[in-house]
Amino acid sequence: MKHPLVFQSDFGNVDGAVSAMFGVAYGVDPTLLISNLTHEITPYDIWEASYRLIQTVNYWPAGTVFVSVVDPGVGSTRRSIAVRTADGHYIITPDNGTLTHIKRMTGITEARIIDESVNRLQGSGESYTFHGRDIYAYTGARLASGVIDFAGVGPEVPPESVIELPVVEASIQDDTVSGTIDVLDVRFGSLWTNIPRTLFARLGVNHGGRVEISIENETRTLYKNILVYAKSFADVYVGEPLVYVNSLDCMAVAINQGSFARAYNIGTGTNWKIHIRKAPRVIYE
Amino acid sequence: MKHPLVFQSDFGNVDGAVSAMFGVAYGVDPTLLISNLTHEITPYDIWEASYRLIQTVNYWPAGTVFVSVVDPGVGSTRRSIAVRTADGHYIITPDNGTLTHIKRMTGITEARIIDESVNRLQGSGESYTFHGRDIYAYTGARLASGVIDFAGVGPEVPPESVIELPVVEASIQDDTVSGTIDVLDVRFGSLWTNIPRTLFARLGVNHGGRVEISIENETRTLYKNILVYAKSFADVYVGEPLVYVNSLDCMAVAINQGSFARAYNIGTGTNWKIHIRKAPRVIYE
Amino acid sequence: MKHPLVFQSDFGNVDGAVSAMFGVAYGVDPTLLISNLTHEITPYDIWEASYRLIQTVNYWPAGTVFVSVVDPGVGSTRRSIAVRTADGHYIITPDNGTLTHIKRMTGITEARIIDESVNRLQGSGESYTFHGRDIYAYTGARLASGVIDFAGVGPEVPPESVIELPVVEASIQDDTVSGTIDVLDVRFGSLWTNIPRTLFARLGVNHGGRVEISIENETRTLYKNILVYAKSFADVYVGEPLVYVNSLDCMAVAINQGSFARAYNIGTGTNWKIHIRKAPRVIYE
Repeated sequence: MKHPLVFQSDFGNVDGAVSAMFGVAYGVDPTLLISNLTHEITPYDIWEASYRLIQTVNYWPAGTVFVSVVDPGVGSTRRSIAVRTADGHYIITPDNGTLTHIKRMTGITEARIIDESVNRLQGSGESYTFHGRDIYAYTGARLASGVIDFAGVGPEVPPESVIELPVVEASIQDDTVSGTIDVLDVRFGSLWTNIPRTLFARLGVNHGGRVEISIENETRTLYKNILVYAKSFADVYVGEPLVYVNSLDCMAVAINQGSFARAYNIGTGTNWKIHIRKAPRVIYE
Repeated sequence: MKHPLVFQSDFGNVDGAVSAMFGVAYGVDPTLLISNLTHEITPYDIWEASYRLIQTVNYWPAGTVFVSVVDPGVGSTRRSIAVRTADGHYIITPDNGTLTHIKRMTGITEARIIDESVNRLQGSGESYTFHGRDIYAYTGARLASGVIDFAGVGPEVPPESVIELPVVEASIQDDTVSGTIDVLDVRFGSLWTNIPRTLFARLGVNHGGRVEISIENETRTLYKNILVYAKSFADVYVGEPLVYVNSLDCMAVAINQGSFARAYNIGTGTNWKIHIRKAPRVIYE
Repeated sequence: MKHPLVFQSDFGNVDGAVSAMFGVAYGVDPTLLISNLTHEITPYDIWEASYRLIQTVNYWPAGTVFVSVVDPGVGSTRRSIAVRTADGHYIITPDNGTLTHIKRMTGITEARIIDESVNRLQGSGESYTFHGRDIYAYTGARLASGVIDFAGVGPEVPPESVIELPVVEASIQDDTVSGTIDVLDVRFGSLWTNIPRTLFARLGVNHGGRVEISIENETRTLYKNILVYAKSFADVYVGEPLVYVNSLDCMAVAINQGSFARAYNIGTGTNWKIHIRKAPRVIYE
């Protein structure tokens, strides 16, 4: 049975790199269904690649094969692997941390090293820089089309051996939940945190209630204010900030029709901390 | 019978949002034909979304289902609708003005409110911000694949109730046609006006003839000059301005291999007026 | 038998132009497989269009039909042609130099002029500016779907008549290979030269060996340094420059995880020369 094949990379769409990957895959099987996740991952940004996978994979049918190529170590000894997730998706990628979120949040049930003696495009041996085309797209197409089964990828390795980037967990202490700003919703300038809605729920704040948020980058506090916990953007004025649940079921911060990230120069990563607590009741006398 | 499914949005292509919509749609039916109109609509720009639909829809086979998600009011009481056009295409969108041009120029023969009790992705009830994925893409896939027929979208409403943005009509008075600059051909910097070729034709100017155009933004005149009415860019020198008929059969203004919009700081919208008249005969004695 | 149809242009992806081409093609045959090479060719840059074709075409199955529309001369007397390459691919394009690399490196075995009396979208006669949609996409779809065979495109012309842009050949003299910087790997800032690996091999430098490269733009030398000939980026430090073999089997220059082009303000074209020679042995006494 055939499965969809989905490509992600940091190659951009301005040259022929992605199309060459499509061509190689259709050369394996011209009836394949091939689609793109994104090719606009910030160059070399493995963390972002990992995040885009967790944002997307579970909306695709089980059996879908993802190929993700953000590969600063191409040509090094980093492994080329394929994994099966606990939800039945396959992901093929350099083993460099791209699977961090999938491994932690979804789970990996089986991992294999790509055997390049069989799973490499014929005649591609002299180029050492485009494994995306010569190995990953090619192997992905073979797996998605059923030319090989998962065992045909190559020898099994322990799922625990799959490399993870360091992650800071969201936590709760007293009346404050704390986490990091994981990624931006680039186009709309929203901050996506690693704080799950379920953790935030323990603060007991309802829609329409108010929370105090503070954002710190190492020793600096860049933002501290009280804002509304809204069901959606339409619940606040245009230009008003809000806290809401994003499409990953985590807490996010935005300005309705503005860019929170640009307004306050907020970045992403494990040194960008955010704290949320129920707003103190202010009584004017 | 199955029909193509075409997505448009202001989500951009840098994250996983569009791919999640594809995944949801293929989950409804893995044999669907899905394509993109554009996801680079300026964020929240309903007018532009409306314009891109009228630019594209009629080039697709009848029965094609379009899903357009530019949705500043997500989570508000704005309606989610599906319409059938006079030419037999379907469009699913928030009812916020996105159908302005289609309603006026093509015509809407039937409109329905999406019944979210059946046409909503299962398990998506806790997120209020991504109706593009949870409602619109899902419903579009159900309609395109034949899982539901058009009546299955939800209850019928009068086509006249579909919301329109205010539009200024092109007009002719004496020897001058007047209109607005509706949109830019972004990449080439051309101005696309709302003046139909058929209206312009009443000036009696032939290809190669000269016209005087003036462009005003409220009280300021930003451009006034005599230029040639050319069949195509190749009829003028590189760097020379021209008036021509664009691919929507309306009048447009450009600089051959330059950007008219950038050269003269021209914007778009109903307060950007353009007047065209047959150039006066200049006699040098 | 049906073949894939692949589109390339300088239209960008921000409006409906590309989608209108898709719609027209699916109108010819809704079961076609249609894919994109890129639509981000620099506007009017025929050289870049030619380069992206040679970078991509041969990775697609024989019989694939490519449609490339970078067309500054639309509406002029430039011919509209379709060619068959020596490797069995078809390319449909304005005859303006877009086939320069394909003609020289792959070879063209047959060329035909598009007969617009049959191969033009019905009802498109009044627009002279969008041949990409009305002629090229339409004809490409007819050919890819088998509605017409290659002879059905139109009358044959000599392959030698296909227009070529001027090209400078790479050469070797004494211990130095010389060539031009053909194009940038835009996203990663690498320089792609026209020096084939096979020509470079005559210098007798092995992986890990050192070469002296110099880059000149007319009379100015912009870069002169000794760097390592590496198998891949991972063989050098982050931030270190290297010479390597790119995915076209030609020599390229890069900075590992940096942008060589931006670092030294390097451009592309026939007046950007690069010389590579085996590094002199330096003996410190």
